[in-house]
Amino acid sequence: MTTEQFAARHIGPDPDDERRMLEIVGYGSIDELMDAAIPEVIRWHGTLDLPEPASEHDALAELRALAARNTVAVSMIGLGYHGTHTPAVIRRNVLEDPAWYTAYTPYQPEISQGRLEALLNFQTMVTDLTGLATANASMLDEGTAAAEAMTLARRASKSRSPVYVVDADTLPQTIAVIASRAEPLGIDVRIVDVERDELPAEFFGLHLQYPGASGAVRDQAGLVAAAHAVGALVTVAADLLALTLLRPPGEIGADIAAGTTQRFGVPMGFGGPHAGYLAVRAGLERMLPGRLVGVSRDADGNPAYRLALQTREQHIRREKATSNICTAQVLLAVMAGMYAVYHGPDGLREIARRTHDMAARLAAALRGVDGVEVVHDAFFDTVLVRVAGGAEAVVAEAAARGVNLRLVDADHVGVSCDETTTPAHLRKVLDAFGATTGGRPVGVAPAWWDAPVGGALPAALARASDFLTHVVFRSHHSETAMLRYLRRLSDFDYALDRGMIPLGSCTMKLNATTEMEPVSWPEFAHVHPFAPDAQTTGYREMIAQLEGWLAEVTGYDAVSVQPNAGSQGELAGLLAIRAYHRDRGEGHRDVCLIPSSAHGTNAASAVMAGMRVVVVGCDDGGNVDLVDLDAKIDKHRDALAAIMVTYPSTHGVYETGIASLCAKVHDAGGQVYVDGANLNALVGFAKPGKFGADVSHLNLHKTFCIPHGGGGPGVGPVAVRAHLAPFLPGDPLGVHVDGRPAISAAKYGSAGILPIPWAYLRMMGAAGLARATGVAVLAANYVAARLRGHFPVLYAGNKGLVAHECILDLRPLAKATGVSVDDVAKRLIDYGFHAPTMSFPVAGTLMVEPTESEDLAELDRFCDAMIAIRAEIDAVGSGQWPAGDNPLANAPHTAAMVSADEWAHPYPRSVGAYPGGVDRAGKYWPPVRRVDGAYGDRNLVCSCPAPEAFES
Amino acid sequence: MTTEQFAARHIGPDPDDERRMLEIVGYGSIDELMDAAIPEVIRWHGTLDLPEPASEHDALAELRALAARNTVAVSMIGLGYHGTHTPAVIRRNVLEDPAWYTAYTPYQPEISQGRLEALLNFQTMVTDLTGLATANASMLDEGTAAAEAMTLARRASKSRSPVYVVDADTLPQTIAVIASRAEPLGIDVRIVDVERDELPAEFFGLHLQYPGASGAVRDQAGLVAAAHAVGALVTVAADLLALTLLRPPGEIGADIAAGTTQRFGVPMGFGGPHAGYLAVRAGLERMLPGRLVGVSRDADGNPAYRLALQTREQHIRREKATSNICTAQVLLAVMAGMYAVYHGPDGLREIARRTHDMAARLAAALRGVDGVEVVHDAFFDTVLVRVAGGAEAVVAEAAARGVNLRLVDADHVGVSCDETTTPAHLRKVLDAFGATTGGRPVGVAPAWWDAPVGGALPAALARASDFLTHVVFRSHHSETAMLRYLRRLSDFDYALDRGMIPLGSCTMKLNATTEMEPVSWPEFAHVHPFAPDAQTTGYREMIAQLEGWLAEVTGYDAVSVQPNAGSQGELAGLLAIRAYHRDRGEGHRDVCLIPSSAHGTNAASAVMAGMRVVVVGCDDGGNVDLVDLDAKIDKHRDALAAIMVTYPSTHGVYETGIASLCAKVHDAGGQVYVDGANLNALVGFAKPGKFGADVSHLNLHKTFCIPHGGGGPGVGPVAVRAHLAPFLPGDPLGVHVDGRPAISAAKYGSAGILPIPWAYLRMMGAAGLARATGVAVLAANYVAARLRGHFPVLYAGNKGLVAHECILDLRPLAKATGVSVDDVAKRLIDYGFHAPTMSFPVAGTLMVEPTESEDLAELDRFCDAMIAIRAEIDAVGSGQWPAGDNPLANAPHTAAMVSADEWAHPYPRSVGAYPGGVDRAGKYWPPVRRVDGAYGDRNLVCSCPAPEAFES
Repeated sequence: MTTEQFAARHIGPDPDDERRMLEIVGYGSIDELMDAAIPEVIRWHGTLDLPEPASEHDALAELRALAARNTVAVSMIGLGYHGTHTPAVIRRNVLEDPAWYTAYTPYQPEISQGRLEALLNFQTMVTDLTGLATANASMLDEGTAAAEAMTLARRASKSRSPVYVVDADTLPQTIAVIASRAEPLGIDVRIVDVERDELPAEFFGLHLQYPGASGAVRDQAGLVAAAHAVGALVTVAADLLALTLLRPPGEIGADIAAGTTQRFGVPMGFGGPHAGYLAVRAGLERMLPGRLVGVSRDADGNPAYRLALQTREQHIRREKATSNICTAQVLLAVMAGMYAVYHGPDGLREIARRTHDMAARLAAALRGVDGVEVVHDAFFDTVLVRVAGGAEAVVAEAAARGVNLRLVDADHVGVSCDETTTPAHLRKVLDAFGATTGGRPVGVAPAWWDAPVGGALPAALARASDFLTHVVFRSHHSETAMLRYLRRLSDFDYALDRGMIPLGSCTMKLNATTEMEPVSWPEFAHVHPFAPDAQTTGYREMIAQLEGWLAEVTGYDAVSVQPNAGSQGELAGLLAIRAYHRDRGEGHRDVCLIPSSAHGTNAASAVMAGMRVVVVGCDDGGNVDLVDLDAKIDKHRDALAAIMVTYPSTHGVYETGIASLCAKVHDAGGQVYVDGANLNALVGFAKPGKFGADVSHLNLHKTFCIPHGGGGPGVGPVAVRAHLAPFLPGDPLGVHVDGRPAISAAKYGSAGILPIPWAYLRMMGAAGLARATGVAVLAANYVAARLRGHFPVLYAGNKGLVAHECILDLRPLAKATGVSVDDVAKRLIDYGFHAPTMSFPVAGTLMVEPTESEDLAELDRFCDAMIAIRAEIDAVGSGQWPAGDNPLANAPHTAAMVSADEWAHPYPRSVGAYPGGVDRAGKYWPPVRRVDGAYGDRNLVCSCPAPEAFES
Repeated sequence: MTTEQFAARHIGPDPDDERRMLEIVGYGSIDELMDAAIPEVIRWHGTLDLPEPASEHDALAELRALAARNTVAVSMIGLGYHGTHTPAVIRRNVLEDPAWYTAYTPYQPEISQGRLEALLNFQTMVTDLTGLATANASMLDEGTAAAEAMTLARRASKSRSPVYVVDADTLPQTIAVIASRAEPLGIDVRIVDVERDELPAEFFGLHLQYPGASGAVRDQAGLVAAAHAVGALVTVAADLLALTLLRPPGEIGADIAAGTTQRFGVPMGFGGPHAGYLAVRAGLERMLPGRLVGVSRDADGNPAYRLALQTREQHIRREKATSNICTAQVLLAVMAGMYAVYHGPDGLREIARRTHDMAARLAAALRGVDGVEVVHDAFFDTVLVRVAGGAEAVVAEAAARGVNLRLVDADHVGVSCDETTTPAHLRKVLDAFGATTGGRPVGVAPAWWDAPVGGALPAALARASDFLTHVVFRSHHSETAMLRYLRRLSDFDYALDRGMIPLGSCTMKLNATTEMEPVSWPEFAHVHPFAPDAQTTGYREMIAQLEGWLAEVTGYDAVSVQPNAGSQGELAGLLAIRAYHRDRGEGHRDVCLIPSSAHGTNAASAVMAGMRVVVVGCDDGGNVDLVDLDAKIDKHRDALAAIMVTYPSTHGVYETGIASLCAKVHDAGGQVYVDGANLNALVGFAKPGKFGADVSHLNLHKTFCIPHGGGGPGVGPVAVRAHLAPFLPGDPLGVHVDGRPAISAAKYGSAGILPIPWAYLRMMGAAGLARATGVAVLAANYVAARLRGHFPVLYAGNKGLVAHECILDLRPLAKATGVSVDDVAKRLIDYGFHAPTMSFPVAGTLMVEPTESEDLAELDRFCDAMIAIRAEIDAVGSGQWPAGDNPLANAPHTAAMVSADEWAHPYPRSVGAYPGGVDRAGKYWPPVRRVDGAYGDRNLVCSCPAPEAFES
């Protein structure tokens, strides 16, 4: 392997490092180590059938060739996806900046204040625009946000009716996702033309679109009142740009608002990723799914942000969970929030007015044409046009001019304007309608091209209330100011560009620049998910290749990239199992076995798939207790639908019983779901699809290098053996046809970031991937070997080896000294590290996953820090430092703290600030001291606080 | 102006800010202010004839269309420009990272340690590879580096001969630049075929190319000895990649090495920018031109970098200067240095071997072909091929296959390989030579495609010595490690992305992302400067538009963008004046009048243009003393060639005497050169070409938004009235034909970054540009108004107004209190600012240029800091703090200092660390305390110090 090969850049340790690590671990080669670590029963000895690895340059050239096979048309299809101008300063300094995109979910708030503030801006933007009290920190897309709104309504409604009413003028893909989510939960979805038809007598919730998918703007206040009268909750799926001009849902009494923020500067990306939103009225905030940022205070009493109300989250509620959503769309939410910060309220209004003006001018020009009818008088950006029998021809004429319109049916065409629409685009549309003559529109005054024609927004629905009044939306309107604000926030945070993030189960590996660059290319960025196939050849070819390679890597027969998060992949996989049983006439099978060590999301997904969760115990070694498994299978044999296991286990161990486990479940008629979260320990060495599993979801944001983005985007493809392939996700625009579920709003989910895993696989090749796996396992065993003498390492497999991560048990030390796992995690910040995973899967432990990308110097820096911390714990234990006032209890130390005029602590400032030889010049300083989460939960504030709060 | 217009993003103050600023300054509108400030005699009242401003999106679309009209061919022309793979991690995190590209020249070393370390890596790379003792921090290109080597040789040589011998196998553009530089200095350049012909009996210097332009690798040791025997110095223009395999110049006794580092990861960019290099043997280091980074120590005795030996610089030596070079190519030098860091010595050797192998395989295949002769047995990357009478046809055949070769003459073709060369490229070349049959090369074994054929490097010239042995070249080979190293270094530095850099005369304004993005596009990045015209239509059209717009803005008739720095623009302008006089038979005119307030470079450039400098005094108001001017004109009337003035003056004042000055000089037969450094105060309001000047250079890196890059790249176009147009720079490949001087090695200089000013002009339009000027002047007057009560403001023009900058006089305070201007500059770091320009043009002062991009909040933050510092100075003056130990004397304060266990200073830590309400969470901390420059000059170390030096 030479330095010219990408694998040598991706993998941290060089051959020298590797030799020294193997020496400590006690093996002669990585092959020997892997032979010892991986149970032969699952071991796969082939070479992955992947193309020879391409250099970074060649991979980019291939991607450019694929990109060139996409056509970037003017997109006027609408349906929730709109052209938008990403401000270049945001593109370069957020989307393309490793300080933002390599960050992890802000579970350690002290080192995440930058993205927490950015998310608070996002939440404030959503609450202000919707007129509701509380918004979360983003959803996966509008479709899933609407589905979450449905289940929220069901929980909150006093009505016991199973009926959920959906306005027929809702985006078709939203209806598809709602329907797919409703069915396993026993919710009866009724599509109703709420303008014309009666509402049912009883229902628990009502979903409205605002403006409608048809473009119509209607007064929905009466419908809200009617719904409330029967105890139903109302969700309004609202367009945030329209809400700058229109009365917001909160002002007509809506309980929930859901939607997308895509058009706030986030490219369409052939469907995603972009940030959905969900907001609720006062009183519902504690029922919100997803992540919620709130304001609390730090140890000095200064305001500090952190994730609020985490008790609601699926990983805690497990089988009692009401949602399985984990990942948000943080990177995209940051972009959308910054778009609002950059434009401010006046700028957003101006964009909305210009967008509306384009639509109004188009309508005016079309109204004067024979045989053409503008259907609605009131609209915001979308004009629905009736051309009896002529719709297909108009759409084709427009496409020939480089403009995509929406073919509604044989008689109707939809035309959506957005901030990128120009008079030249309108002229092409008019041409397509035959509404020009001699290059001028017929039937309108000559001044039409030059002047606004007057709006089509009903005066009664005009927005009267102010929004985005916080100073943050008034202070960063020059590019210089914006650039500095982004730098300031990103400097608050610790991401992979500063150092190791050894998070067990999260695989925080390199997100290579070459993988990231194509995401910004216009040919990938500016494609509408519903663009005609002829325009998306390159995209679809890339996706087909990627799905094929993922199938090869996992040993499955078919893969769908539609799920836009791991949790959604789980749901898709379980729904496939469910559909499979039903298809075979065994629809009564509804028990899902889940080991006690499983990630909470597994149970939550099972519940959402309409299954009953039965927990299987673990033995002392942390392995699935095969005796208990037998008992549970026996007890539920006839109802057994599936087992969900993670492999290697969440304990970071290659369990030897996996093959036997699969056989037992299969024998009982169940299906085996292997959670692919830990696939980084398997690639090239074992294939779940070959060692007994029927279905897995993968985390492309773990094993396959999509960056975590501070808590999203994620991509969670579902991979299945052939018998489950017919039940994979379908096209959300065609689900009524093919009967498959819609897991995301777009057919290929977050297609816009699939160049990342494509490039990773293309550049690593079979040998590179296998070597990455080997080095990841070597690194974990190296850390375990170096730290075992200082902290007990919990659980091991063959020959005492761990897989790709190891669990350090702090419980005995904590018991003896009072130092908590939290103290150690926060103290690691002083040493210049992000903490490992805390208290998962075992409370009171730290789970360390170094990944293959960290070189020996960084691994040693971490081990040295942990050993030094052990000595500090001992100093507390021995009474040298008091329990309540020591470097661990006071961690993390801010610069302001260690340079304060007074210092009353029983250890020197230098011990607080620069422990263990931390590099003084390059030291990372957290902006706040330890954050008090409980205080913030008691005093819930989830939008931007007044600046005075920060005065010291 | 709406937020959708770029001008509103570029200009910091919004209308509210503007109103408040006007109030303080005392004018009702910007127009009123400008009417008062600008003398009517120069005022131009028209509207610039520029296209209507484009939005950022539309400007990018236009640039994409221009880019699409360039053809990116496989480049095998060579001649000092080679294909190279820029590592993506370096592209994204250096070239595209505002923390690097918006930085200023590291004159304030405490806040520049990151780029200083990066430049030290560059210097170490050059010295190691050339085998010489000391290298500077980069030159503008190979041609100018070679010219500087010539004048260095002349200064250092004991020979009094005016003869400079240049090897005929030197790059033709280098010969052109050398010849252009030699002529006005009276140097007699002799082009000699040093292989065949005798050297002259006497000469002061010898220039050799290694390998030769023809590709030949020859043992030059004998030539070096022969030159030394007559007291001459030897410069070897060496290819650094070749030097990884070949005995370096230092090992055969060469005195100087010069060349380019372009192929170390810097795209060709149609000629630039990239970093030239210059290295010298021990004993010559104090004669080096350009900037030199050295190691010194800070106030705590820790190692710290800074610019060394600044006494050599032109701004100090003025008319005694031996070079006028100011700007280096820092951003590109950082890239090249990082390329070496990323690949390390083994990686570079591997790239060199692969490159050489490609050339050797090509030669082997061609040797077997009838009618084709490989001229040289020994070569590195370039194969010179003789095809009697067939060269043009071969080159055309290759071009038809997408490959550019070098047409040497009717019988010879040059083929250069590089790290991007693939066997597929070789096949195309062979096809072009008719050296394939049935798709296979004739005359070589079938295994040829698959295996190396053995080298063509003479064993006697093989490199035996080690290089790049410093640990920095062994530690950052994974992308993760590289990313973190880049982040670590950039975090050390203060650039525009953190806050204001109020540098008088340097115009540190916004470098907008939209302006920067196209620089990375392949269609601009990967074009060889000598590519056929048909491949560069887009580039040339863009450049023609840009030259036209610059002519319109300045009022001149013709513009050349060739000069790749302001200093080179000065030289080009003065050479045009010189040629004009000679053309008119007045070649005796050689006196250049220069006001005493002028930037030192003016005088240095005049000397280089063969002129005698006569200084004109200034009056008490800082204006050119018109009485002294009359006297000097009288005295030198017959010999008067030119006057060089800066307008507005370097004092930041619109002098009213300018029109009269121009008339007087013209009356005496002289030409008027107006230095365009301060054009930011004129654009849209006055045109030098219309108020009396004959020639100006512009600084595109000042007024027209090319970022300073930490000290380069710059671009310094020269603009002239029609009578001087025939004497503008010529094509360096055609200067023997057209008689014009070669100022840079490439016809369009640093063409690769011209999209930046193009986009700026395209997006601002006439109104935006004028508004920018007005706001820049308003901002300077606002700062002057706010600070006048605390520091005397030196010099003013009409109505007490300054132009775009103001000079704060610290001398009375310094005299009274002992606090130096240096103390104030360093203390500003504690307040979170880069210091203004220090002691220029008046010692003991600070010159503040806020530019139009800083909003009122930032201007006020600066003024507040200065006012607070004034109070601190008073506290020293009043004896509250001792003179040697106070927050000013100890500034800047590092985090390590203010958090030290001991604190013995007479002021609290908080006063040192967080003065004047500095934001604690977001505070910028310099990595070192005040740097001792003199210590480093006494103990000169200009390459990477051993890591032990940094142990505390």
